[in-house]
Amino acid sequence: MRISEHSLRCLAIELLQRSGAPALSAELQADLLIEAELRGLPSHGLQRLPRLLARIDRGLVNPVATGQHRWLKHGYLDVDGQRALGPVALMGALEALVPKARNVGLGVAAIRNSNHSGMMAYYVEQAALQGLICIVVTTSEALVHPFGGTRAMLGTNPIAIGIPTGDAPFVLDMATSIVSMGKIHNHALRNEALQPGWAVDEQGRSTSDAEAAKSGALAPFWAAKGYGLGLAVELLVAALAGSEFAPEIAGTLDDTEPANKGDVLILIDPASRDGTGEKLTRYLDMLRACPPADPVHPVAIPGDRMRARRSASLRDGIELPCSLLNELRNLQAA
Amino acid sequence: MRISEHSLRCLAIELLQRSGAPALSAELQADLLIEAELRGLPSHGLQRLPRLLARIDRGLVNPVATGQHRWLKHGYLDVDGQRALGPVALMGALEALVPKARNVGLGVAAIRNSNHSGMMAYYVEQAALQGLICIVVTTSEALVHPFGGTRAMLGTNPIAIGIPTGDAPFVLDMATSIVSMGKIHNHALRNEALQPGWAVDEQGRSTSDAEAAKSGALAPFWAAKGYGLGLAVELLVAALAGSEFAPEIAGTLDDTEPANKGDVLILIDPASRDGTGEKLTRYLDMLRACPPADPVHPVAIPGDRMRARRSASLRDGIELPCSLLNELRNLQAA
Repeated sequence: MRISEHSLRCLAIELLQRSGAPALSAELQADLLIEAELRGLPSHGLQRLPRLLARIDRGLVNPVATGQHRWLKHGYLDVDGQRALGPVALMGALEALVPKARNVGLGVAAIRNSNHSGMMAYYVEQAALQGLICIVVTTSEALVHPFGGTRAMLGTNPIAIGIPTGDAPFVLDMATSIVSMGKIHNHALRNEALQPGWAVDEQGRSTSDAEAAKSGALAPFWAAKGYGLGLAVELLVAALAGSEFAPEIAGTLDDTEPANKGDVLILIDPASRDGTGEKLTRYLDMLRACPPADPVHPVAIPGDRMRARRSASLRDGIELPCSLLNELRNLQAA
Repeated sequence: MRISEHSLRCLAIELLQRSGAPALSAELQADLLIEAELRGLPSHGLQRLPRLLARIDRGLVNPVATGQHRWLKHGYLDVDGQRALGPVALMGALEALVPKARNVGLGVAAIRNSNHSGMMAYYVEQAALQGLICIVVTTSEALVHPFGGTRAMLGTNPIAIGIPTGDAPFVLDMATSIVSMGKIHNHALRNEALQPGWAVDEQGRSTSDAEAAKSGALAPFWAAKGYGLGLAVELLVAALAGSEFAPEIAGTLDDTEPANKGDVLILIDPASRDGTGEKLTRYLDMLRACPPADPVHPVAIPGDRMRARRSASLRDGIELPCSLLNELRNLQAA
């Protein structure tokens, strides 16, 4: 069903405020969910809202917390998330880092004990729009097996990088797993076979059965390289945030456990070089003009497709499964 | 032919000193080349030495330069490499950043106008051995086509990450191309076909002919993800170092042009958290014990195989092609 962005946003804000979130926190959390829907990333969209409301009800999320800030060193911000809404803790850390990056040249924030932060592209884009280079990495439940291994022992550990240009920012946001667990669930729903090499089952055997893969493990993308990057994220976040490793992580996919993953945010101010933005824009335009392998698919820059999809969604509305819309409206009527 | 590490090291140092490099610079440059040989990375080893000596002869490398340091902000070091030997400029920047990272929590250095820095693993390992997290990225000549494109417009843009643990450091060092151009040259030498999807020829057509691929372009690894990461490195380095983009870069594979690529180095001090190293070591040992897909190949940690190879090379000597050894001995006799 197609619904306007505005009516879905109002619905999400209302539900969050009724659960005890102050207006600004409810609006920020809703923005994360709505922006994911607008950009065609429903796995980080409104389907997460009922679980989030249940987590607030059970005290696993504190909707009024904003995170406790402590500068371990002049450029290193430690954040105890105090069970805050993920976007409230992460955006609070980002805002505290902005003046530090402008002043010192760069800063790092490490957050533990906060909830699921949603689409990482959101944060690095916000930073890039303020002229700052931003790298965000985060950990998750164990869903990915090490290269050559057969048990889920790493998170999907996404890497997001935002870089300001003279035009729209460069925005990369990618998991280090071969596909998302959401994609496996979609294949299971539609009874479709998985591609070879995507996943193993609970016994660690390679499988094309999506249902069996749900209790197994995803492969890292591109074997040793994706594994190496995912593991680097796992270690970096645990070392800087003091959060847990994947095998001990819970609380972003369930409504029974406190969230104990971590997030790390690095912000760098490149502003000391004049004309850099325009130089980057010219190079990206050269790439867009590269002779394509298939004339129907010109070369794209990370962020391009997401922005096009967002414009279309704002114009045409957001496509939401009826079951999800009914669930949200029932929560509203309750 | 097998030669001892020590005799090759003495040979390299002698040749570099005779070309005008001061003792410490010659020793550092030689160490980079020898360490690459020891770790089984001959593409970054002694085969680069004759070209490097020719570059010194022609004034493209200034063997006495060490790089000019300027702190753009308290934590942001700008380095004009002044045509220095790559390792001299990069290690000089790393050393200047160490006290900054300890004091501020982190620091960034951006280097332009210096020469090929060799194996990135070297630097991040050195930093990790001092208890610091280190990320190094660097750009190169255009060798990689954008995802969906057919012309080489990006460098191989490696990403190296070193993280201290309670034991040997985690050391990741990976190009963002699907394979190295060195591997293409090896296939051409041995007249072997390339795997599908590795490369395109000069006209941008997919090819399995290694000879044709040498004047074409490599694919990014894992399609859109490798392309996105490689492009992020391209933009990050140009924005922070003020260096050129791949299509304009020269001077690391030839002996006729000044080098105009860039390097970026981020150093973070995680030392404020006690017991972190041991926690990381326990997790890495859990991963090594993960049930393997193939019992002959247990799960490895990035850095493990390199260290094992290094020990074996120190014991058994370095395997060097006779032609290269003769070339180096002729230079010594000249």
